[in-house]
Amino acid sequence: MLYNFEQLQQKVEAAIHHLDFENRKPEGLYAPVGYILSIGGKRVRPVMLLMACNLFSDEMDHAVMPAVGLEVFHNFTLLHDDIMDDAPIRRNHSTVHVKWNNNTAILSGDAMSVLAYEYLMTTIPELFSKILPVFSKAAIEVCEGQQLDVDFESQYYVSEQEYLKMIELKTSVLLAASFQIGALLGGANDQNAQYLYDAGLNLGLAFQVQDDLLDTYGDQSKFGKTIGGDILLNKKTFLMVKALEVSGKEDKELLNDIIGAKDFDPTEKIRQVKEIYDRSGVKDLAEQKIRYYSDKAFGCFEKIGVSSDRKIVITKMASALMSRSF
Amino acid sequence: MLYNFEQLQQKVEAAIHHLDFENRKPEGLYAPVGYILSIGGKRVRPVMLLMACNLFSDEMDHAVMPAVGLEVFHNFTLLHDDIMDDAPIRRNHSTVHVKWNNNTAILSGDAMSVLAYEYLMTTIPELFSKILPVFSKAAIEVCEGQQLDVDFESQYYVSEQEYLKMIELKTSVLLAASFQIGALLGGANDQNAQYLYDAGLNLGLAFQVQDDLLDTYGDQSKFGKTIGGDILLNKKTFLMVKALEVSGKEDKELLNDIIGAKDFDPTEKIRQVKEIYDRSGVKDLAEQKIRYYSDKAFGCFEKIGVSSDRKIVITKMASALMSRSF
Repeated sequence: MLYNFEQLQQKVEAAIHHLDFENRKPEGLYAPVGYILSIGGKRVRPVMLLMACNLFSDEMDHAVMPAVGLEVFHNFTLLHDDIMDDAPIRRNHSTVHVKWNNNTAILSGDAMSVLAYEYLMTTIPELFSKILPVFSKAAIEVCEGQQLDVDFESQYYVSEQEYLKMIELKTSVLLAASFQIGALLGGANDQNAQYLYDAGLNLGLAFQVQDDLLDTYGDQSKFGKTIGGDILLNKKTFLMVKALEVSGKEDKELLNDIIGAKDFDPTEKIRQVKEIYDRSGVKDLAEQKIRYYSDKAFGCFEKIGVSSDRKIVITKMASALMSRSF
Repeated sequence: MLYNFEQLQQKVEAAIHHLDFENRKPEGLYAPVGYILSIGGKRVRPVMLLMACNLFSDEMDHAVMPAVGLEVFHNFTLLHDDIMDDAPIRRNHSTVHVKWNNNTAILSGDAMSVLAYEYLMTTIPELFSKILPVFSKAAIEVCEGQQLDVDFESQYYVSEQEYLKMIELKTSVLLAASFQIGALLGGANDQNAQYLYDAGLNLGLAFQVQDDLLDTYGDQSKFGKTIGGDILLNKKTFLMVKALEVSGKEDKELLNDIIGAKDFDPTEKIRQVKEIYDRSGVKDLAEQKIRYYSDKAFGCFEKIGVSSDRKIVITKMASALMSRSF
């Protein structure tokens, strides 16, 4: 049988709840783990893993804890990223380093990185040698992507290629690994597992460029984040990277002046940068890019060697992800 | 053939050197990894792993990278511990968060925790399901031990049992896992691998209590750390924990006054606490404890089902560790 998104989400929630971090000792280590896992998130990675497994198999029990492992790993990176960015809020709640302190956030995060592996291993031992290297490769790449993102903050010129490599590592590889691990747990052959990896990678790239686009051009009420936030932080988004590349000489200078200005009116800054974006046509470039990666992802889904009715749930999820309808 | 400590140390050094972190990209992520691994340390854990492997097997090549994995994991914990303790110096060099910054130390440490698993997996895939759960269990326990150590700072009364549990988790389990993983990589049966785990655990406990003892009663020139350092930091060492338990009422009060004093002369503080330790007989208690655990460790070595000439190197290493002669 095929499970839908909500059913798989519930399996993940139940498994996380069952881990009962709130009552584990030492409390100072595990209470923050329970907290960050309890304040929400859509559980996209574990659900992706389970959907990929479900493509090939009706038996899913052995895939639930590896799915939880991916969610724990993802939340570990959020926990440490929030220290590094000194972010006070995550999912409308205080971040762990604010609610507790930096040391707690560091150590609880470290525990989560180990727990992630433990849960990845809570499956059939014969599958360890298939899934663990996939996970480890993605995990180290996530660290590399985060480092590139940090590096870009103090790097004036970032090429489109550099930018795409950064979001691939920081965001896409873990989505890709979620699909691939799920496929392997479902008994997929290496070729089909690779198609799922590629689908996840392209979907991740499309999603991240779309995220950049919506941060400037989105509908505040639907997007959930403050529109223009990236502009105010001078973030090297797809739009900014391309605007610095394709704008005329005058707009480039203007953009540099805006980026360099210490004092500015936020609303005015957003308006000015958006005008440059409009003139340079980077909105279109972003939309083309999103379509390019999205098409590639759906092309990968088509190649997977299972019947098309089996693919209904996973392609529906991918469409929903791209239309931000969940 | 049996390799001695120095030969195994050289295998580990060569393998670490070969990883060439100094030249990996992104530099901001990997240069600190290369740095912390290059500033020394005796490579005790990887050498222990290789020695345990060598007890059962002359074939060691498949054990070298898992050994490096343990060293990388250990250095990851040092890197994050040094942020938490705000320690400026490690092995006579600046710590990573001082030489770079906190964010770098967090992220490079995170990468090391993932790399540790990657190297543990750089071996025969059939052995993954044997060695990875052993490593993961130890890794999460190290985090728990570190949390207990943090908790004890603000906890007035720590029982001997609580103290021993803390050092078991923080220090001993990784030494124990080093032995056990090495044995499993060498083809040991589960019983022999368990004897090695137990030997490592007891050796670690003996070593840590001895470390506490030497911090107060050691010879500065041999110990390598400032004598009395633990006393100045009010650390809950074996001596302090026992002194707060077994001293008479007056000495207990005096000890509490000394611990609570904001202004003090360091030399005088060390002298006063040492006098209380002398009066309460905790030095003897520590020496008994060290002997107790050390004897247990050697008892475990005896039980291992290989010929006694095969055990010469590993027991010699254990003796050297306890006499601090390397």
